[in-house]
Amino acid sequence: MNHLINDCTNLIYEIREKNPLIHNITNYVTVNDCANAVLAIGASPIMADDNAEVEEIVSMSSALVINMGTLNQRTIASMIMAGKKANELNIPVVLDPVGVGASTLRNKTVQEILSQVKIDVIRGNLSEISFLTGFKASTRGVDTAMVDEKNDAVGIAKLISNRYSCVVGITGKVDIISDGIRFAKVANGNKLLSKVTGIGCMTSALVGSFCGVTKDYYTATVSGIATMGISGEIAFEKAEAMGTGSFHVSIIDALSNMNSTLFLERCKIDETKY
Amino acid sequence: MNHLINDCTNLIYEIREKNPLIHNITNYVTVNDCANAVLAIGASPIMADDNAEVEEIVSMSSALVINMGTLNQRTIASMIMAGKKANELNIPVVLDPVGVGASTLRNKTVQEILSQVKIDVIRGNLSEISFLTGFKASTRGVDTAMVDEKNDAVGIAKLISNRYSCVVGITGKVDIISDGIRFAKVANGNKLLSKVTGIGCMTSALVGSFCGVTKDYYTATVSGIATMGISGEIAFEKAEAMGTGSFHVSIIDALSNMNSTLFLERCKIDETKY
Amino acid sequence: MNHLINDCTNLIYEIREKNPLIHNITNYVTVNDCANAVLAIGASPIMADDNAEVEEIVSMSSALVINMGTLNQRTIASMIMAGKKANELNIPVVLDPVGVGASTLRNKTVQEILSQVKIDVIRGNLSEISFLTGFKASTRGVDTAMVDEKNDAVGIAKLISNRYSCVVGITGKVDIISDGIRFAKVANGNKLLSKVTGIGCMTSALVGSFCGVTKDYYTATVSGIATMGISGEIAFEKAEAMGTGSFHVSIIDALSNMNSTLFLERCKIDETKY
Repeated sequence: MNHLINDCTNLIYEIREKNPLIHNITNYVTVNDCANAVLAIGASPIMADDNAEVEEIVSMSSALVINMGTLNQRTIASMIMAGKKANELNIPVVLDPVGVGASTLRNKTVQEILSQVKIDVIRGNLSEISFLTGFKASTRGVDTAMVDEKNDAVGIAKLISNRYSCVVGITGKVDIISDGIRFAKVANGNKLLSKVTGIGCMTSALVGSFCGVTKDYYTATVSGIATMGISGEIAFEKAEAMGTGSFHVSIIDALSNMNSTLFLERCKIDETKY
Repeated sequence: MNHLINDCTNLIYEIREKNPLIHNITNYVTVNDCANAVLAIGASPIMADDNAEVEEIVSMSSALVINMGTLNQRTIASMIMAGKKANELNIPVVLDPVGVGASTLRNKTVQEILSQVKIDVIRGNLSEISFLTGFKASTRGVDTAMVDEKNDAVGIAKLISNRYSCVVGITGKVDIISDGIRFAKVANGNKLLSKVTGIGCMTSALVGSFCGVTKDYYTATVSGIATMGISGEIAFEKAEAMGTGSFHVSIIDALSNMNSTLFLERCKIDETKY
Repeated sequence: MNHLINDCTNLIYEIREKNPLIHNITNYVTVNDCANAVLAIGASPIMADDNAEVEEIVSMSSALVINMGTLNQRTIASMIMAGKKANELNIPVVLDPVGVGASTLRNKTVQEILSQVKIDVIRGNLSEISFLTGFKASTRGVDTAMVDEKNDAVGIAKLISNRYSCVVGITGKVDIISDGIRFAKVANGNKLLSKVTGIGCMTSALVGSFCGVTKDYYTATVSGIATMGISGEIAFEKAEAMGTGSFHVSIIDALSNMNSTLFLERCKIDETKY
């Protein structure tokens, strides 16, 4: 555990040193927040989604984040094209299966992406990730991140991690991150985070940002998820009395002030190996 | 009137209890604000616009909001498809005819929507709503919400309300809401609201949110419009000295702090029946 | 020089008096900020990009801003169509070639636009503008605005300005604006501006806003660029201690508080003629 936290704090430092370029194919609801979150943590965002350019864009990037928030036929093709190119060049690919379970389009798309692209990290809430197992879970909108079924989440993370040979990050009251062997629990965050749109999307963009500076995607995922949790706590302390608009702004503030010392002081990360 | 205000304050309470899912097919300019406004008032937003999924998404929602802000051929088809499915399932449909009168595309689209979908609430500014009557009105951009022609507005609201058997909400210096029989005037709000983009869009999203918890769409429309007006006043008090960026943030803050007591204290609602 | 600054301060005043309508065909990442920046400085934004309506929309506007941030086939056609119509009606056209050099799509698109549309102002960072000369420059994402090669920038501005008979605005540590004969240097701004997405896009939208109230596009470009630089400085003073989320909000605040006196007091504009 000390080892994991130590590795995370190193990544917090390295991301500002290396300033990796992160390619995001994402949704039009939270895209501005995602770009600003990536900048705030020390990476550089590039948002491009046309199939005539995504292969070139991903080729110059250090990581690719695919976010299914506002899917459409045009961007699905771009996601797969960019993902395949990233695989070819050993560029890490993070998938955020936003709202999977809510429509046949989303269900088919996630299956198509998983069958055609080697995904390095899948980040979602419990209902989204459990859909991938075939387990039933009611997906209700895209903001139902607060589920507290810790035991199930561990089992689901293990299953999906092994099936797709990837890291899985399930965010909720307690976040679960696994590479199939190691299981980290992150207890940072707070309930107000579910009252701002895009927290999940930003978290995935942060995970992608950290994947841009290490080949250890498990640690990158823990870092990204814990960074958002800690920032949410700091923002809550500063802005809860004002309202969710100010809280939203304070999250970006906190991300931009994040550093290794602060991370070390605040993180609530616990690890088990099986 | 006391009855109306009482019903509005009940809706303010119920929306946080019932947390309805609100499907928005909207524009890419103000979509983030709309999602955050819906969350702030206690509902849950889902923004999906591909014709391959809108029928499924609307089927699990409590209301549908169609916003014409950045129309394109792809989403026009989705709007109509989602609207028809909502009609079939008795899910309320709110239409925000953003910028109608400004282009043939918008004019044709609003007519097509109104001929194919039973709309429950139309919310717009005076120039937009009066276009629907065939009356002439200059539409200049989408931010000209401040028109003070109270008498005309009442007549226009009545005409449109009767023609389409729907509730009409005309926002301006004084807002007019009518179901053809009752006419409510809401005198909340202030001029700075016209200096932030998306106030009209957010108002329509709020109206949709309230329609998600009652079959009385007239009261839902009054509630949504008055909620934005009151929030604008509170935001003005807090942030006017800082500038429109802070004012924008404070509007979301105020929405997230809205409750029945505050609404009752602040609302300036007046009702007439003919 | 006194003459130039004097003309700029007049434009700051006039834009709030005349409230020109500015048509933006732009990207979905920063579109909300662009609309709010245009409103904050005293103009009115209209964001419309479907080829079925852009000719009508541009015809009622005082300027057109074409921003290549998130290019796709659908909007490229709209950009050219709107640009041609603007040329026909003598409406000024501002081009922001976001990310040119980063993909073949962007390179071809900028060439196609420049060959089919008479552009009045090109605004970009040094890597983007130098791509247009055939000079080599590494484009890395869209946030690398901080380049300090003053001498090259002057030569590049002159070359591009003469080749396309347009005003060129190159933003960086020191901004260079030229109409091929006059060269203005603007030394306002600060490094934190590169940590918020959309500063370049907003600057181009401001330049478009000023072009909406004068035929002197050189002065309009200096005004737009200096307005953003000054606003960045004011925002830095207010919000740097908080973080980039608050800094972002404070930029819009500062734009909304901008006036001729403040501009005169703060601007660092220097001019040379050759």
